[in-house]
Amino acid sequence: MSTATRSSYHHGDLKAALIEASEEIIRAEGVEGFTLRKAAKSAGVSPGAPSHHFSGTKGLLTAIAIRTFEKLGAELNTLPSSGIPAQDLRTQGLGYVKFAALHPGLFRLICRVDLIDFKDPNLMQAAFEAMASYEHAAAAYFGYEPPDPQKRIFRPYMASAMATAHGLAHMVIEGRPALLFETPDPIGTFIETALPSILLATWPD
Amino acid sequence: MSTATRSSYHHGDLKAALIEASEEIIRAEGVEGFTLRKAAKSAGVSPGAPSHHFSGTKGLLTAIAIRTFEKLGAELNTLPSSGIPAQDLRTQGLGYVKFAALHPGLFRLICRVDLIDFKDPNLMQAAFEAMASYEHAAAAYFGYEPPDPQKRIFRPYMASAMATAHGLAHMVIEGRPALLFETPDPIGTFIETALPSILLATWPD
Repeated sequence: MSTATRSSYHHGDLKAALIEASEEIIRAEGVEGFTLRKAAKSAGVSPGAPSHHFSGTKGLLTAIAIRTFEKLGAELNTLPSSGIPAQDLRTQGLGYVKFAALHPGLFRLICRVDLIDFKDPNLMQAAFEAMASYEHAAAAYFGYEPPDPQKRIFRPYMASAMATAHGLAHMVIEGRPALLFETPDPIGTFIETALPSILLATWPD
Repeated sequence: MSTATRSSYHHGDLKAALIEASEEIIRAEGVEGFTLRKAAKSAGVSPGAPSHHFSGTKGLLTAIAIRTFEKLGAELNTLPSSGIPAQDLRTQGLGYVKFAALHPGLFRLICRVDLIDFKDPNLMQAAFEAMASYEHAAAAYFGYEPPDPQKRIFRPYMASAMATAHGLAHMVIEGRPALLFETPDPIGTFIETALPSILLATWPD
């Protein structure tokens, strides 16, 4: 986007353009490569605009994290449910790992408790909604009532169900599939062949 | 260490001093903050010395990763065994997460398939030995024969047993315990109170 468009931004457009530009930077270079200055330049706005509209880096990264949780939720909450708890939990786990593999930069961003505002109510809501089907599948598998959105208490079984997929997601984006498979696309091969058997070992029928 | 000591290094001392200095940098600043130049400066050797003695950054980081796996093995392989498979696996998982919490920079280093040479036979050996007790505990829990060091084949149950602790380790070093506990030391509180219940939900008796 050229700087010539700068003056024509509406407030909402400008925020959207900054989010879009920032997301592209994070996809390409990771959150380590992100700066407000780069985002402003890429969106064609003044260097001060991101701070003005998002109260700094944390605000902008939190906005991107919210969008990322919405994307994750759009994936996970539309996965088919078989009614068989173990199979549904494996389906959710597979979806979670696939999302990380497709969007490693954005996945790493939503892990960064230090860089985004996890107390932001919109972020909390987006994170909770993203995992709604996952939480239901985990509750059914472990024999608990579905989680109550009003009571966000610590549930050991839920942390366990999350941790396994989270570990697999990190293993994948860390490049470990290349240690197992010498195919042109080790991550794809891992997800197609090894991952279902790992999830079956974790949550058997 | 001052540059005055430079000329007195024996070959092995110099390598050891570079490893020591590099490890300190990684502990303090993470692998993102590591450069060969910083390591050379901190060890008081010429800027070219690290490349000369370790064939570049990857060689030096691989040497540190080997040491880190040795440290991890020294922790995990000396943990008490109860003879009860589930309890032993939980003990190993707890040890793994504690290690990551104590050494986040070094833990992140041994995850970086892109930065260290995972095909290095010494690294492979150190990694395998570090997880020996863990692998035995997992095999016993899942009802398999203990893994054969000569046959390093892919075992879904082992990947599952690793993934859960790996996910928990990442969650801890990502700072998630602070979302659960508002204590002076959220990570310590999490490890003491929440982690045992998560591990029990994962690998019940």
